[in-house]
Amino acid sequence: MDIFVAGTGMTQFGEHFDKSLRDLAYDASIEAIEESGIEKEYIDAVVVGNMLGDTLSAQGQLGALISSDLGLNNPEAFRVEAACASGGVAIKRAVTMLKTGDYQHVLVVGVEKMSDHKSYEVTAGLANAADEEKEGFYGLTFPSLYAMMAQRYMYDFGATPEDLARVAVKNHYHGAKNPKAQFPKEITTETVLKSTEVATPLRLFDCSPISDGAAAVVLSVRQPQDSSVKIMASEMGTDSLALEEREELTSVKAAQVAAYKAFSKSKVRPGDVDVLEVHDCFTIAELFALEDLGFAERGRAYELYRAGKTYFDSDLPVNTSGGLKSCGHPVGATGVKQLIEVTHQLQGRAGDRQVKNAQIGLTHNVGGSGATCVVTIVTN
Amino acid sequence: MDIFVAGTGMTQFGEHFDKSLRDLAYDASIEAIEESGIEKEYIDAVVVGNMLGDTLSAQGQLGALISSDLGLNNPEAFRVEAACASGGVAIKRAVTMLKTGDYQHVLVVGVEKMSDHKSYEVTAGLANAADEEKEGFYGLTFPSLYAMMAQRYMYDFGATPEDLARVAVKNHYHGAKNPKAQFPKEITTETVLKSTEVATPLRLFDCSPISDGAAAVVLSVRQPQDSSVKIMASEMGTDSLALEEREELTSVKAAQVAAYKAFSKSKVRPGDVDVLEVHDCFTIAELFALEDLGFAERGRAYELYRAGKTYFDSDLPVNTSGGLKSCGHPVGATGVKQLIEVTHQLQGRAGDRQVKNAQIGLTHNVGGSGATCVVTIVTN
Repeated sequence: MDIFVAGTGMTQFGEHFDKSLRDLAYDASIEAIEESGIEKEYIDAVVVGNMLGDTLSAQGQLGALISSDLGLNNPEAFRVEAACASGGVAIKRAVTMLKTGDYQHVLVVGVEKMSDHKSYEVTAGLANAADEEKEGFYGLTFPSLYAMMAQRYMYDFGATPEDLARVAVKNHYHGAKNPKAQFPKEITTETVLKSTEVATPLRLFDCSPISDGAAAVVLSVRQPQDSSVKIMASEMGTDSLALEEREELTSVKAAQVAAYKAFSKSKVRPGDVDVLEVHDCFTIAELFALEDLGFAERGRAYELYRAGKTYFDSDLPVNTSGGLKSCGHPVGATGVKQLIEVTHQLQGRAGDRQVKNAQIGLTHNVGGSGATCVVTIVTN
Repeated sequence: MDIFVAGTGMTQFGEHFDKSLRDLAYDASIEAIEESGIEKEYIDAVVVGNMLGDTLSAQGQLGALISSDLGLNNPEAFRVEAACASGGVAIKRAVTMLKTGDYQHVLVVGVEKMSDHKSYEVTAGLANAADEEKEGFYGLTFPSLYAMMAQRYMYDFGATPEDLARVAVKNHYHGAKNPKAQFPKEITTETVLKSTEVATPLRLFDCSPISDGAAAVVLSVRQPQDSSVKIMASEMGTDSLALEEREELTSVKAAQVAAYKAFSKSKVRPGDVDVLEVHDCFTIAELFALEDLGFAERGRAYELYRAGKTYFDSDLPVNTSGGLKSCGHPVGATGVKQLIEVTHQLQGRAGDRQVKNAQIGLTHNVGGSGATCVVTIVTN
């Protein structure tokens, strides 16, 4: 059975002082439904990816809330949460539902409302993605967790702060070509290296921002008129939340497991992939992603950046949307935005950042410091 | 394809001052896995039903956390949330996964840790199940929402406070026979009618308590040696969160939709059901349940209680576990506990509250004031 991306919708990523969580979800969802051409009453189910609705907006039960706001027909609807992988998990859930044959059209919406809140509240909410007893309680936040991983990677493999900076520079180069990006501005390695230090070696421009935004797709078992993009595989892996319990600090086993399953199911090999969106919550995470997914040898991903090979018009286009760094990271929306970006690339709708002849795309969405990963592979 | 309840596990419901959220989930899960006889490495996925981990325990990403604590093999794992229906939604998700044929054994664990927190924090966390913009912001809490529904029901249909009290009396009668119950004590209608008024007409003994607890099941496509209980249907419906947007105050459309789908799929009729667990978060909700599910005519469910017909040894055994009222209501665990109770009834393992010759069981799990409902039907 084929599962098609029948419609896509996405708000601007950034600060929406005039929009609430539900407003953002509504806007992206309506756009996706309209693009799909499917009447609202035929949407069988709604899956919402969201992390911080409870802690920041005092709002739970988003499945029913969003379905009702949209005027749908009392459908099956629920929220999934796996920290920053919530959007990817929502896609995986919809794919699973459609595979049963009991559903025809499922709306997936990822949404997050992070601005309009005190920064320590946002930081504390995000820290729920860490192991509270073993990490959060002691004051560890996500920049510090990823900083430790980066330190180890640089020590083991000889990468430098400039190598990390190159990830941000490339993502801002792409983001400057994406009208939906939160920070659509080009930067230089100097911008990164002279920015405020957040947690050594990570500086402000190594870190993805706090963002509001929503992204939605309608997945369908019926091929729509205007799209032939279909999902070949969507697979997940998990690992411990606490870094101290992991086998390795410089690779993400959950991502390796998810990638292994997704490549096996789709019979695609890394060399077949034309465009990929990976989870660059911090610059170091993009290097891990390319190694965990099999696009670079262990400890050598940064060489691709030294050689300029990850730009949209190069061998291995990575994060043509601008990634989490430049496009923004409204947590629950990110995994869905990734699918929209590769879909638009495969449809030739990616404007100034269009990858030539893209036939196979891959998304990689990570929760926390790597406890959850969803890898999805699509083709035209 | 048949989907079997291969193993069940459940902590005591009540106050666990020495156990955290993850401890409770671990205890129930290990018990369910051991009862199933399935080796841990063959558990393909973990679905966690939880509402308040973020707001009360500063802990998200529970799928990966619990899988890792259990020593599972980096499986697919995620949390679902639909307020108090989170456990039921988790079951529905697992059923959907197994129906694809891609999974053999899925662990479902519902868990909540509500004590050890300030009561206003718990009340605020639970209020996230309401529409924050239209209800929560104005101070509406769940006792007040259900109180309004109860007022309307009593006005329209002539039910009295004594009728509501009879629901609690019956559930405590059952709970007194359940070793896992939080309040295993019989009460009288006078106990209820003389208890503190919470929100007119609801008194303290009309309300389910604040509870800690976890309940877990292993669902499997392979028939286990010791059980033939299988899931015939698990279906969902939704409606608006805000009462002001509903068509009716005295019935729950989400439940009617879920019941219609579940009865249609299973080809079971209400008259065929031998035992049912329904969502009595407040006494009035049990009356709604019986009417929405088709076990009583609209506005007449209370007559069944006047006639004593809902006891375990009567025509229509309802909430033999003691229900949310006497057994306790650790929110995310409730929907899973309901499935365990009907499973044990069908297996003849329900001890002093055993229903004779129970062949078909039904569970009814509601989120908020009725925005989400999951109805699951099982048979022997």
